[in-house]
Amino acid sequence: MQRPSGRSPDQLRPIKITRNFTKHAEGSVLVEFGDTRVLCNASVTEGVPRFLKGSGQGWLTAEYGMLPRSTGSRMNREAARGKQGGRTVEIQRLIGRSLRAAVDLNALGEFTIVVDCDVIQADGGTRTASITGACVAVVDALNHLQRSGALKTDPLISMLASVSVGIYQGEPVLDLDYPEDSDADTDMNLVMTANGGIIEIQGTAEKAPFTEDEFQAMLALGKKGINDLIALQRDALAQ
Amino acid sequence: MQRPSGRSPDQLRPIKITRNFTKHAEGSVLVEFGDTRVLCNASVTEGVPRFLKGSGQGWLTAEYGMLPRSTGSRMNREAARGKQGGRTVEIQRLIGRSLRAAVDLNALGEFTIVVDCDVIQADGGTRTASITGACVAVVDALNHLQRSGALKTDPLISMLASVSVGIYQGEPVLDLDYPEDSDADTDMNLVMTANGGIIEIQGTAEKAPFTEDEFQAMLALGKKGINDLIALQRDALAQ
Amino acid sequence: MQRPSGRSPDQLRPIKITRNFTKHAEGSVLVEFGDTRVLCNASVTEGVPRFLKGSGQGWLTAEYGMLPRSTGSRMNREAARGKQGGRTVEIQRLIGRSLRAAVDLNALGEFTIVVDCDVIQADGGTRTASITGACVAVVDALNHLQRSGALKTDPLISMLASVSVGIYQGEPVLDLDYPEDSDADTDMNLVMTANGGIIEIQGTAEKAPFTEDEFQAMLALGKKGINDLIALQRDALAQ
Amino acid sequence: MQRPSGRSPDQLRPIKITRNFTKHAEGSVLVEFGDTRVLCNASVTEGVPRFLKGSGQGWLTAEYGMLPRSTGSRMNREAARGKQGGRTVEIQRLIGRSLRAAVDLNALGEFTIVVDCDVIQADGGTRTASITGACVAVVDALNHLQRSGALKTDPLISMLASVSVGIYQGEPVLDLDYPEDSDADTDMNLVMTANGGIIEIQGTAEKAPFTEDEFQAMLALGKKGINDLIALQRDALAQ
Amino acid sequence: MQRPSGRSPDQLRPIKITRNFTKHAEGSVLVEFGDTRVLCNASVTEGVPRFLKGSGQGWLTAEYGMLPRSTGSRMNREAARGKQGGRTVEIQRLIGRSLRAAVDLNALGEFTIVVDCDVIQADGGTRTASITGACVAVVDALNHLQRSGALKTDPLISMLASVSVGIYQGEPVLDLDYPEDSDADTDMNLVMTANGGIIEIQGTAEKAPFTEDEFQAMLALGKKGINDLIALQRDALAQ
Amino acid sequence: MQRPSGRSPDQLRPIKITRNFTKHAEGSVLVEFGDTRVLCNASVTEGVPRFLKGSGQGWLTAEYGMLPRSTGSRMNREAARGKQGGRTVEIQRLIGRSLRAAVDLNALGEFTIVVDCDVIQADGGTRTASITGACVAVVDALNHLQRSGALKTDPLISMLASVSVGIYQGEPVLDLDYPEDSDADTDMNLVMTANGGIIEIQGTAEKAPFTEDEFQAMLALGKKGINDLIALQRDALAQ
Repeated sequence: MQRPSGRSPDQLRPIKITRNFTKHAEGSVLVEFGDTRVLCNASVTEGVPRFLKGSGQGWLTAEYGMLPRSTGSRMNREAARGKQGGRTVEIQRLIGRSLRAAVDLNALGEFTIVVDCDVIQADGGTRTASITGACVAVVDALNHLQRSGALKTDPLISMLASVSVGIYQGEPVLDLDYPEDSDADTDMNLVMTANGGIIEIQGTAEKAPFTEDEFQAMLALGKKGINDLIALQRDALAQ
Repeated sequence: MQRPSGRSPDQLRPIKITRNFTKHAEGSVLVEFGDTRVLCNASVTEGVPRFLKGSGQGWLTAEYGMLPRSTGSRMNREAARGKQGGRTVEIQRLIGRSLRAAVDLNALGEFTIVVDCDVIQADGGTRTASITGACVAVVDALNHLQRSGALKTDPLISMLASVSVGIYQGEPVLDLDYPEDSDADTDMNLVMTANGGIIEIQGTAEKAPFTEDEFQAMLALGKKGINDLIALQRDALAQ
Repeated sequence: MQRPSGRSPDQLRPIKITRNFTKHAEGSVLVEFGDTRVLCNASVTEGVPRFLKGSGQGWLTAEYGMLPRSTGSRMNREAARGKQGGRTVEIQRLIGRSLRAAVDLNALGEFTIVVDCDVIQADGGTRTASITGACVAVVDALNHLQRSGALKTDPLISMLASVSVGIYQGEPVLDLDYPEDSDADTDMNLVMTANGGIIEIQGTAEKAPFTEDEFQAMLALGKKGINDLIALQRDALAQ
Repeated sequence: MQRPSGRSPDQLRPIKITRNFTKHAEGSVLVEFGDTRVLCNASVTEGVPRFLKGSGQGWLTAEYGMLPRSTGSRMNREAARGKQGGRTVEIQRLIGRSLRAAVDLNALGEFTIVVDCDVIQADGGTRTASITGACVAVVDALNHLQRSGALKTDPLISMLASVSVGIYQGEPVLDLDYPEDSDADTDMNLVMTANGGIIEIQGTAEKAPFTEDEFQAMLALGKKGINDLIALQRDALAQ
Repeated sequence: MQRPSGRSPDQLRPIKITRNFTKHAEGSVLVEFGDTRVLCNASVTEGVPRFLKGSGQGWLTAEYGMLPRSTGSRMNREAARGKQGGRTVEIQRLIGRSLRAAVDLNALGEFTIVVDCDVIQADGGTRTASITGACVAVVDALNHLQRSGALKTDPLISMLASVSVGIYQGEPVLDLDYPEDSDADTDMNLVMTANGGIIEIQGTAEKAPFTEDEFQAMLALGKKGINDLIALQRDALAQ
Repeated sequence: MQRPSGRSPDQLRPIKITRNFTKHAEGSVLVEFGDTRVLCNASVTEGVPRFLKGSGQGWLTAEYGMLPRSTGSRMNREAARGKQGGRTVEIQRLIGRSLRAAVDLNALGEFTIVVDCDVIQADGGTRTASITGACVAVVDALNHLQRSGALKTDPLISMLASVSVGIYQGEPVLDLDYPEDSDADTDMNLVMTANGGIIEIQGTAEKAPFTEDEFQAMLALGKKGINDLIALQRDALAQ
């Protein structure tokens, strides 16, 4: 088996994490997984949604979008159609749920963090890149709250990252790009913490059901990828 | 650990599968997982969506809804709000994707099957009950096509069923009801075929990340539940 | 003239009223007019819409929906279309207006009753079945409020029921089913109280204008049907 | 009993029917029932909706709207809210259904008439004024089709008009204006043909159920009003 | 060059300004620029939008609509489509922005004026007619507030009017009607005050870019037209 | 007068035009006017909207959006609100209209160019930056069509650019940034061609009407800015 990109099965694409990509957001990260580029902005506001008012607890939510020509052929603009598509809704719920697991909402207090993941260019794995980049943006936003004195302690529970694994031409591979993704038998997205805790696991048989053995092989590969990504996130944050 | 329902950890709720629940649909199944009751109607129409026209291939899609007072307190009616919620969209995409894995769309030919899963009463596990019941409704719809002479061969690849597993008060349990679900640390939904193939696996850490050991224990429990459900589906179809 | 169902002109379809059909709603009735089956749930909440706040007066409103495959060919799901159709809006306004005439809103106090009528299976007369079933569900909800001590007196002014009458092949008939309805010259829906008071009367010439004589004959037939239905409602409530 | 306007119980408001009120529509009528003013435009286009294509049959449909400040306090603009209200939907369905009874759609052939009733100023009875004015606009549109040679015969079956009747302070009155309407016990709208055929009858008990005797008295009054209106329509068409 | 209407290049169409056209609005003006007829209602309510609450400042906003058959062929009704079109949005923003320049919002205090411009009949220049007529309606509404004692001083800064100018068959012309508008090379809308101040200037090259000379010629013509219109507004207000 | 940025009154912000910013679009330009950054993608597809089918003529349209955190405080995402705001609609209509003036649609033939202008970071002048960048993207897209052999001739009529001018603290200034824009008395956007033709001119008095002299001063300044921008566009295209 030869991957279209020539990568080895357990090799990530070149990963690049650029902090402070825009100037307004409290955390602003451009994350690149190869040709996939996502701008992840974390915005902090005082106050929480109604269902949390007075609870002393904070909130974190996420929205996701693809620029219409981030893809090979132009997609309709969701704002013009008047409605977010099912895939968009599914992805932004996943991003928000995952990141809420990284933050102690009680320690956050009555602040809301809204994470916007906007895909500038898509080449497979936009949701895993989004989560990985957004985690860094959230860390920056939390640091901003601490520097400004609004928070005394750090609500971050753990760094987390996300990567896809799949069975491509019969073999497990890490971090699928678009040519692999569109041809894979099976696709699984993992969200895991720095110390190996599983936050989300979503596996889908695209062509034929997958066996438990295949599943275990993918899981092992994913853990390796998550470790690599978390090291890269830490490098970026150290700069 | 004592389950609120008094069930043993690997015990399903009482399952009931009633075929021909309504008279119009080609497949109509009321499925009950304990107090969770979902009406699953499979409707067959000639023709396919535009992107498949002329391909010789069929299509299967699903829609999901909850009656406003299927739940403990009344939810807003999505038709009146003018928009399906994110959870609804996520679930109906899961149901459709799963069932497409059960059907050979080429063997189906240019017919479309629309599966409607409407929750009459909710008590946890509406998505797993939906998939389990809908699979039987789809079988009835495929049989209808064969009896009517529209199809010569059976497009069914494999029966499949779905069940939830979770960590409740530190222990893995099968088929969570609402009191367990709202208190679980972790929740995972499995869709598997009769012979152990994995179609979908979706695990979410609700409170704390889960370990790989917990994950493996849940997976084992889930496989047991799927086997029980598939036996019950077959009993229902044999009547 | 022979009715498709073999009924005599002044004969209702077999009527069945099942209380407590679901467990969450304060009033939950499955009503069957022959093959027409409607689930009528009455939900009670504290508080009233803004325009009544502080008035001491309660409110009652209704929503109506048809499951997509309650009909012979599948209808689009209104939640997915993002909009309730004109017929739906018209019917739910009729249901709400009728039931408000059965309840003394001042005696109800600042509670809101929302009635959901969801058609499980349609075979003509879904709006008349809805009103007839919903009235029983509302009585159950009002009793619930009294049992719980929230109300000291019964706000029910009068039982009411609804039935259709029409001119079918030149003759007045009671309680049209779908084959009659689609072929009738004229269709009229009546909502009346136990003691003969008229709440709503809606007659429509489908093919040709109807004469005053035809109108009077239909009205007489309708009064007979209403009396039968109210007796059946009372039987159901007595159980 | 003294009517606020000083009219006798069986007296219409001053009625004015102005044809050719705007220049573009094939039929354009400004109808005035006292201070209620509605612009009724009938537009003819070739072709029919999809469900009638190739049937040789025509179609007629209606839309209704109120200018935001046609009423005492400004209403929200439905176009800005993004949705027609329930009352609007109910009324436009009534207008369309009524007018279809006036026209032989087979004789119309594959043309579509769209009737727009827009309320310039409201003072009660906007739906009855709309139907009465729109009928004249439809006649003008049908004449236009005949003059232009598109039709050889007149598809008009019968003129029709509409009026409201009600019980005001215990007495039946004809053609309620806004002060009467907001205070009436009962309100009934009639649509009838020139020769006494009933097209639509819609009666609603606003405060208490009404008796059959009250109903018969209102019906008699309504017939008188319809006759007066049809005479006025004919005068307008004769000019 | 001969204008289709036979007018000289600097000649307005016959202008008619009818005050108190409807009875409910605080200011109600029917404005006619030739066959273009727009009903401009100014409604006053106490209170301001949230972003101004407590500021002591008032607000003025505008909405615009065209009746479906105000045009040569029927347009879809925006309320039925569920959405205002781009042109509508653009025009109503222009009307609101222009009129806010005519009123001292601080002197208005916490009142809101909503201006509704509804086109009864269109023949070119509906936006300029709307602004011109709406300014008179706003003056009437402001006078109403003063007469009623709600305001002690007049918040009107200056009368303003609006007119279009264009290059038609190579020559600058004033106040284009529909035949000119659809054939013009360039179209410019001006909003100016009584003493020559420019409020809005919007010029668009329809076929070829226009030169600065053409622009200056149009501007001169526009100023002449504005002066004529303001004189006519004053005549109307003097009656 | 001192500009907040220290620029001279007739000085543009630092302008940067990066071609091929993303890999999928036929033309992809990141344009920067100081801190304002807009991604302009031009997408080419075969075929035209229905109203042009068979005409032999092409089409060009534009859509505009701001990323939610492109601004100082986060704006709601239009896709999530289900509706594009009025400002968005107004701007995208301006962009499309302007660019259509740069392209000979007959020479384009039955192709459609959709221009997407998405604001990554906003600091005033997003619409003028959008038009200026999009023009370069359109040129790249047209070149792509010629290189691929789909077009034999170049449909470009003329390069065009856009810039804002305003009266800031009593003095005319070129290319307003956000601090100037929010404080300006008057704001005017110009779209002009390489040889001085005016495509669009939109001037708005923000605080007080502006005089003709001010207007002429702004126009002169704008022409200077347009010339500078067109030189920069040509530099970018030459690389």
